[in-house]
Amino acid sequence: MPFDRYRAFPPIDIPDRTWPSKTITSAPRWLSTDLRDGNQALIDPMTPARKRRMFDLLLRMGYKEIEVGFPAASDTDFQFVRDLIEQDLIPDDVTISVLTQAREDLIERTTQSLTGAKRANIHLYNAVAPLFRKVVFNASRDEIRAIATRGTEMVMKYAEQNMNDTAFGYQYSPEIFTSTELDFSVEVCDAVMDVWQPEAGREIILNLPATVEMATPNTYADQIEWFGRHVKNREHVAISLHPHNDRGTAVAATELAMMAGADRVEGCLFGHGERTGNVDLVTLGMNLFSQGIDPQIDFSDIDEIRRTVEYCTNLPVHPRHPYAGDLVYTAFSGSHQDAIKKGLEHLDRVAAEQGVDVREVDWEAPYLPIDPHDVGRTYEAVIRVNSQSGKGGVAYILRAEHQLELPRRLQIEFSRVIQGMSEGEAGEIDADQIWQAFQREYLEVEEPYSLAGLSSTTSADGRDEQIVDLIVRGEHRSFKGEGNGPVDAFVDGMRQAGAEIRVLDYSEHALSSGGDALAAAYVECEIAGEVVWGVGIHPSIVTASLRAVVCAANRAAGVTIPRD
Amino acid sequence: MPFDRYRAFPPIDIPDRTWPSKTITSAPRWLSTDLRDGNQALIDPMTPARKRRMFDLLLRMGYKEIEVGFPAASDTDFQFVRDLIEQDLIPDDVTISVLTQAREDLIERTTQSLTGAKRANIHLYNAVAPLFRKVVFNASRDEIRAIATRGTEMVMKYAEQNMNDTAFGYQYSPEIFTSTELDFSVEVCDAVMDVWQPEAGREIILNLPATVEMATPNTYADQIEWFGRHVKNREHVAISLHPHNDRGTAVAATELAMMAGADRVEGCLFGHGERTGNVDLVTLGMNLFSQGIDPQIDFSDIDEIRRTVEYCTNLPVHPRHPYAGDLVYTAFSGSHQDAIKKGLEHLDRVAAEQGVDVREVDWEAPYLPIDPHDVGRTYEAVIRVNSQSGKGGVAYILRAEHQLELPRRLQIEFSRVIQGMSEGEAGEIDADQIWQAFQREYLEVEEPYSLAGLSSTTSADGRDEQIVDLIVRGEHRSFKGEGNGPVDAFVDGMRQAGAEIRVLDYSEHALSSGGDALAAAYVECEIAGEVVWGVGIHPSIVTASLRAVVCAANRAAGVTIPRD
Repeated sequence: MPFDRYRAFPPIDIPDRTWPSKTITSAPRWLSTDLRDGNQALIDPMTPARKRRMFDLLLRMGYKEIEVGFPAASDTDFQFVRDLIEQDLIPDDVTISVLTQAREDLIERTTQSLTGAKRANIHLYNAVAPLFRKVVFNASRDEIRAIATRGTEMVMKYAEQNMNDTAFGYQYSPEIFTSTELDFSVEVCDAVMDVWQPEAGREIILNLPATVEMATPNTYADQIEWFGRHVKNREHVAISLHPHNDRGTAVAATELAMMAGADRVEGCLFGHGERTGNVDLVTLGMNLFSQGIDPQIDFSDIDEIRRTVEYCTNLPVHPRHPYAGDLVYTAFSGSHQDAIKKGLEHLDRVAAEQGVDVREVDWEAPYLPIDPHDVGRTYEAVIRVNSQSGKGGVAYILRAEHQLELPRRLQIEFSRVIQGMSEGEAGEIDADQIWQAFQREYLEVEEPYSLAGLSSTTSADGRDEQIVDLIVRGEHRSFKGEGNGPVDAFVDGMRQAGAEIRVLDYSEHALSSGGDALAAAYVECEIAGEVVWGVGIHPSIVTASLRAVVCAANRAAGVTIPRD
Repeated sequence: MPFDRYRAFPPIDIPDRTWPSKTITSAPRWLSTDLRDGNQALIDPMTPARKRRMFDLLLRMGYKEIEVGFPAASDTDFQFVRDLIEQDLIPDDVTISVLTQAREDLIERTTQSLTGAKRANIHLYNAVAPLFRKVVFNASRDEIRAIATRGTEMVMKYAEQNMNDTAFGYQYSPEIFTSTELDFSVEVCDAVMDVWQPEAGREIILNLPATVEMATPNTYADQIEWFGRHVKNREHVAISLHPHNDRGTAVAATELAMMAGADRVEGCLFGHGERTGNVDLVTLGMNLFSQGIDPQIDFSDIDEIRRTVEYCTNLPVHPRHPYAGDLVYTAFSGSHQDAIKKGLEHLDRVAAEQGVDVREVDWEAPYLPIDPHDVGRTYEAVIRVNSQSGKGGVAYILRAEHQLELPRRLQIEFSRVIQGMSEGEAGEIDADQIWQAFQREYLEVEEPYSLAGLSSTTSADGRDEQIVDLIVRGEHRSFKGEGNGPVDAFVDGMRQAGAEIRVLDYSEHALSSGGDALAAAYVECEIAGEVVWGVGIHPSIVTASLRAVVCAANRAAGVTIPRD
């Protein structure tokens, strides 16, 4: 590989650095840029409706500073900011902010987008890094500094014109801070402050982006400590981090830079943003939580956060993503499972001795850095089915012998059933026992609901109407539901039968090979606060789907066929 | 959130630490544990065939130390090790290693698995951490230390019996190093060395696992520096890291710990392993590469590495994964695209001045930390289609107006087509122009190949035979192909028509709603070293698939319908 085309990032000369002996003792100020940097880097940018979902999620979680767009660059962003303000959707204690480049017409339009907001920050940036000065702008240091100071003047001028009713703040970013000479970044920031004139009650946010991550994370901490020592008016400056994840170390760079004196962190939920993304606010917040520090953000239903972000971004969260991935509270190794079991029993004993609930006991368990219950999850021991063939997994057996492609979270759920069996019965569980357990758990559950008949019509506008014949605790009942497709209409009908069901995930496939026409459907539902899977198999893809929903409803009702 | 159930990890007392002033100047020794820790944490453990694919990939990439299993715990692992040895599949310069617990019967069986190997390491571990001593084993420090020394004696005894022909090495792991009192880890390791007696030519690997990541990454570096100062025989010890990623900082922890003196790193490709996974060897290696350091590993076809790992693990690589994700060489922002364009033009000028190929010029470009070509990728500018609705993406328009669910990499590929148009034509591109371009690029390409007829039979054993009538450059030709399903049989037939096609990815869906029975199929193919997508739409799912393959073949041949 042609590694000699690249050069090592030069180390920062700060031998008396103090950050390596510091620890983090409180949460920083957070800014979510999901609606700006995050949204900008999606293949499908969010629709206004999805932006609202994201904004509402951020409010519910407790973010108080939210960057909501780049209104001068996008009419959509402009309109979204106007809607937030005009429909009075921003709580009094929340500050929105918007990004702008340093051109007069853009700044004027930016301030117009904010007219009438209660609290708003304008975030101005310009490129100061040497590669940009040379290749992109062909401009001197003095010219670049003048863009920043002139831009600041324009922000103040147009804010006065257009934002009279607004508690108005200012944020400046020297772009790309991490590849800029440190003394020049300080020089530009000092010059910007000569215009803005920060003082008590009039802070300035100096945001120092690692727009491209290009060195080991200690380097960013060194840069931040150096900057903090040399910039003037330090007491009126909020030093802000904006790390990207090109080297996979954005979380670390942020934590070390917090130790080095940063006050504020910008990022996105699950690390969206250009290329590898911005730093992940979920991991950062949960890392604080796991050290006994209040993250100031509510992660107590992490699956709901994950689902909302996946919906808004149309991108997945990886199964190994810290704190939120499907696999992160699982243990596959037998020795891990054994140690966890003993650890949890120990916590139960401690709770009993103290006479408190186990959820109040200090957490300490092998292989589980936090109590999964604290984020609405559960610990799952995933059982191996040993065999000489090496085809070990429960999921493998269901696929190889029954053509069933179980979604990952259903695999984990079903693994818990097998876990229960392996504790009840001695020895190894074979493929037949697995299949019997699967049928018992998902395919033979007919109480309290069972599907007796169906008829559906689809109208010209694509709405489905569904007549549902259900047997409910032995009695025939018929309901009519309406919706956007058969599952939706069916859920509407089930609601009338007394079952409130929310469909969270859905997949379906043909049981392939040999002209076999069966379809298998899997649905993940939330029913009475519980998340359960249902499975249906039938020649008709519609009936298979509806059976899966009925199965989930039955399982949530806690009725399973007793073992033979 | 109940953060007060957790306590901060206590800082390490090492105020004279030296690692923050160090830099990394060479690659560590690498060990891949994809076949052990990685495989152990898969929902579907690898079949023997998939293990071979993974092993071959690791050899091709250049790994020289490969942990191949836990043979005493699993008959499958035992057999896999035997196959590697008996079928002479291990190159002379590669050392395999296997894991074992410290029980005599397990150690005996472990050595039996290695009989006849040329070079092999035995990796013994036992739990030394206080939580395990208290909760899992109820054992004193002395008892725990005795397990380690007695285990080492057993390894030496049975290796002498069963591994006479083997250049035999030893690795010891105090588990979980990061949560163990540092002086006790050193005490146990020193005691193990009293048994093993390392000397020149007889090293010992002391592997210091962060089996659960539980502190900021500087803490691991402090622990490693402390250990390196206090352990005896330092000159005959290889200090080895085994980091997990529970806090999302495993890459950082590894890099800082390398600065702190570690010699060797264990991890998995793309970070598989229990829970959040082991540290990612791809990111670590590419981070070195990007700093001008030879990673000693070949990442020059990173997509092939990704595909093989996805195949073997049955888990995806995230679109934002550093260096390898679908989105990491894209730029969505117009100002980023502009800066990149100027940067690439600058590199072309430098190359012309120096009279060399641009690939030989030192890399420096805005927003692209490495030249994507160095890993077999290309830079992609993803174009936004601005509109008042906020429904901005090309992918969105194809989905909303034509029900086409383009796979992500096809979206990016097609975006390049639109990029070309937007540079050729002035102003904004509307939804009609996008649809016309899509048809022109994928649906109307009938040269040199076009599909004239098809007939297929499926035999009892599930093999497909396919008679293909193709028009090749205007001439009717008929071929018979065989394979595992229609696409496979068709590719076999196309091979006879002169087109060598490898199908890399495939998806298909119904064009839903309103009883419309059309199916859309998408295939990603490698043809003559080039990766191209093809699309087919047809009422029959089989014909749609085959049209998609023909489309890819035509596009690879470089024939597109000229614009009207």
